[in-house]
Amino acid sequence: MPAELDLNADLGEGFGVWRLGDDDALLDVVSSANVACGFHAGDPLIMRQVCARAAQLGVAVGAQVSYRDLAGFGRRRMDVAPDELAADVLYQIGALEACARAEGTRVRYVKPHGALYNAAADDPRQAQAIATAISGFDAGLPLLGLPGSAMEEAAAAAGVPFVAEAFADRGYLPNGRLVPRDQPGAVLTEVAAVVRRAIRFATDGSVEATDGTVVAVRPLSLCLHGDTRGAVDLARSVHEALTQAGISVRPFAT
Amino acid sequence: MPAELDLNADLGEGFGVWRLGDDDALLDVVSSANVACGFHAGDPLIMRQVCARAAQLGVAVGAQVSYRDLAGFGRRRMDVAPDELAADVLYQIGALEACARAEGTRVRYVKPHGALYNAAADDPRQAQAIATAISGFDAGLPLLGLPGSAMEEAAAAAGVPFVAEAFADRGYLPNGRLVPRDQPGAVLTEVAAVVRRAIRFATDGSVEATDGTVVAVRPLSLCLHGDTRGAVDLARSVHEALTQAGISVRPFAT
Amino acid sequence: MPAELDLNADLGEGFGVWRLGDDDALLDVVSSANVACGFHAGDPLIMRQVCARAAQLGVAVGAQVSYRDLAGFGRRRMDVAPDELAADVLYQIGALEACARAEGTRVRYVKPHGALYNAAADDPRQAQAIATAISGFDAGLPLLGLPGSAMEEAAAAAGVPFVAEAFADRGYLPNGRLVPRDQPGAVLTEVAAVVRRAIRFATDGSVEATDGTVVAVRPLSLCLHGDTRGAVDLARSVHEALTQAGISVRPFAT
Amino acid sequence: MPAELDLNADLGEGFGVWRLGDDDALLDVVSSANVACGFHAGDPLIMRQVCARAAQLGVAVGAQVSYRDLAGFGRRRMDVAPDELAADVLYQIGALEACARAEGTRVRYVKPHGALYNAAADDPRQAQAIATAISGFDAGLPLLGLPGSAMEEAAAAAGVPFVAEAFADRGYLPNGRLVPRDQPGAVLTEVAAVVRRAIRFATDGSVEATDGTVVAVRPLSLCLHGDTRGAVDLARSVHEALTQAGISVRPFAT
Repeated sequence: MPAELDLNADLGEGFGVWRLGDDDALLDVVSSANVACGFHAGDPLIMRQVCARAAQLGVAVGAQVSYRDLAGFGRRRMDVAPDELAADVLYQIGALEACARAEGTRVRYVKPHGALYNAAADDPRQAQAIATAISGFDAGLPLLGLPGSAMEEAAAAAGVPFVAEAFADRGYLPNGRLVPRDQPGAVLTEVAAVVRRAIRFATDGSVEATDGTVVAVRPLSLCLHGDTRGAVDLARSVHEALTQAGISVRPFAT
Repeated sequence: MPAELDLNADLGEGFGVWRLGDDDALLDVVSSANVACGFHAGDPLIMRQVCARAAQLGVAVGAQVSYRDLAGFGRRRMDVAPDELAADVLYQIGALEACARAEGTRVRYVKPHGALYNAAADDPRQAQAIATAISGFDAGLPLLGLPGSAMEEAAAAAGVPFVAEAFADRGYLPNGRLVPRDQPGAVLTEVAAVVRRAIRFATDGSVEATDGTVVAVRPLSLCLHGDTRGAVDLARSVHEALTQAGISVRPFAT
Repeated sequence: MPAELDLNADLGEGFGVWRLGDDDALLDVVSSANVACGFHAGDPLIMRQVCARAAQLGVAVGAQVSYRDLAGFGRRRMDVAPDELAADVLYQIGALEACARAEGTRVRYVKPHGALYNAAADDPRQAQAIATAISGFDAGLPLLGLPGSAMEEAAAAAGVPFVAEAFADRGYLPNGRLVPRDQPGAVLTEVAAVVRRAIRFATDGSVEATDGTVVAVRPLSLCLHGDTRGAVDLARSVHEALTQAGISVRPFAT
Repeated sequence: MPAELDLNADLGEGFGVWRLGDDDALLDVVSSANVACGFHAGDPLIMRQVCARAAQLGVAVGAQVSYRDLAGFGRRRMDVAPDELAADVLYQIGALEACARAEGTRVRYVKPHGALYNAAADDPRQAQAIATAISGFDAGLPLLGLPGSAMEEAAAAAGVPFVAEAFADRGYLPNGRLVPRDQPGAVLTEVAAVVRRAIRFATDGSVEATDGTVVAVRPLSLCLHGDTRGAVDLARSVHEALTQAGISVRPFAT
């Protein structure tokens, strides 16, 4: 049984006067903060504030990079040319790194957001653009993403460390992919079931797929959500259950 | 007589499909490139491209930071709160640093653009926001600006090196300030006069003000413009004249 | 005693995934909706949705025009040239008019937002830019604003109707101007006092200034706020008190 | 033989300080101006200026609507939900209508730009979003687009007039579609060939496809380009040849 597991969540997803989710509550639960870098959310002041609080709490800061799409919150797939996408990713990492540095911490990993995450799971060109951007910035910076995806391949090709994450509240297909959101079984809402699944990822490195088969998924990090009151409570429950099971919640990268 | 002088100009001021000025021509003339960082101009791909070319040519890369105002090209004064402005500046420096690093170079200095430059000359709060942002990123990074301005004071207070620049094609008042653009004598257009003035800055550390008095201005860098064909030609003439006068054109920061 | 009074409030101030205030609650209280037009808040879909609901409820739609400043929510003064500002205002009015038309209503008035409201109160150039923009679109469209301000003069000069508004929850100076927000007495929070003041505006056309003098202010509309839970409750209290006093709450423009 | 034909081109595609193409030269050649509405290019002041000049010259103003993508100039396909896209289109039409009205003209038609044009040719959902937006604004306003496309079907379904355009400088497939830009024969550059083709569209209503077959294409408008010096010259040549052939160049909509 692993002694530790990372919990990551999206943070700093406000912009200007607007806020989304409860950053302070989530920062008390997670060990890694996927900080929005200004392209789908996150203005520079919010970025600094999240970095400052993360630094105080020992939470690792990650660059949550996105398509340039504030109006769509980065949830709309865009056909961005690889060289443009690589430059966009590089820009966002650097912007967050400066905010992190001013607050006494550093960017520890990169995770694509929303539609870019989905695109990078399947589209080798977009995945490569992300991986080469990371490698251009710092080849030691891990890419956090979906195991078995184009992201993982692109990271390997670019010589960038890849860190696998899993989703305790999402259904899995027998091939290890997530059940698409428009299909039954895509999302689990029962707290006990989500918590059991989280512990099983950490201890057995497996998950039960929708058809009952057991799939090997051994993540270094679990992705939690925080956009609703219930989501934060669920995140807290997962954290508590892991701790009680003797699994310490710690950043995968320091 | 100083053996060397820096020439700086604004570069990478396009956005998306749009271009402004002749970057390639200017990069052959200047020793320091004030690279737009995305807030008034400059998308990430253009930023990388300018950094790549600057790195090849040994031109120093500087972060030309601005208000967030693409529509107004950063030329409209904005009443931005100091903590927001500091975060905006930090964000831009970091974004350019990542682009520079991926292209084998680094950000060597920071220079405010347009309305922010003018505001930072007079307004201690905005000047301090810029200086503290630089200090939060790297206290060794110089601020390039107008000597005797609020910028210079703020840099001193923040422990950031200040580098003075001068303008060979602008009229000077007896107090060392520039003649405002809406007054006669604000801009010099005769090539020979501009060139003479450039050499005098470099050799005597002085300039003749509009009323004939001699003002001490000893810049480490001259600011050139490149937004018109004539401006690029003028920049070339200044470069040639300096070289012929035995003054080598070199970055002030490496 | 006037038989009726208008209540206006800012609405549709979300953007993309973000929301601000409780639009549905406010639309049940006000008779005029100052709808954000995309420059400080308000994306096209939100604009349509607010227009649709306003049309259903008989609430008048007004164009809440702003500086182009999503990051600052239009609260930062910007030195925009008059021809640019006039074009920006025109653009916003037209954009909202199209949304309103598709939902079975029309833009009935224009009200500047935030820093532009404040600028247009004092700066004749910005006030004129707004008034001429309205006149270029439809010279019969009223400008809603602060009585005795540069806006009122500019509207008169441009031949645009001016409609005066008052603030039941703001302190007034003896000269009829609002107490600046950084001074004591700027904001009233006691519900009973705000309600009394609202009724007095409607019945006596006057308000008691901070020094106890009575100032004549005879508004056609009262501006209410809705960005907090308490603000919506206060708005409801004002609406009820007016109705109980026999003053019907109705749009000033139909 | 038709007595007249319309020539359309993209105009007003600058933003802020940036310009693209030679608007003044093109406005002397075309009879219809596809004016950028701020989402891929075109700020409000440029929009007014193009409308003013078009009004003087009797050139019809059309709304060139786009995805919200200044950084990509609207050339990147985006997976925008139909209700969002419809609202975006409505917003742009209205914004231009206000600019046109202030300059003494009106929006006479709508034409999608760039990636949206291509998407709307094939994707019924995006085509329907455009057509229903037009119908919500003014069901009499024509949609200018590719004949035989999803746009044409969507216009018919929404009760919006459809106007077919053709491209004298593009290769055609036997099925009436354009040769994709990455294939040989996609673009014709020889002036005489382009001119012959323009006249043939106008007189015979046909074009010779890449395999030599004759395809019936009877456009009411020819689309010309103006982004290069050569493009403007080519546009002039087409205009002259049509006039000499007795075909008067006139807006299809007035």
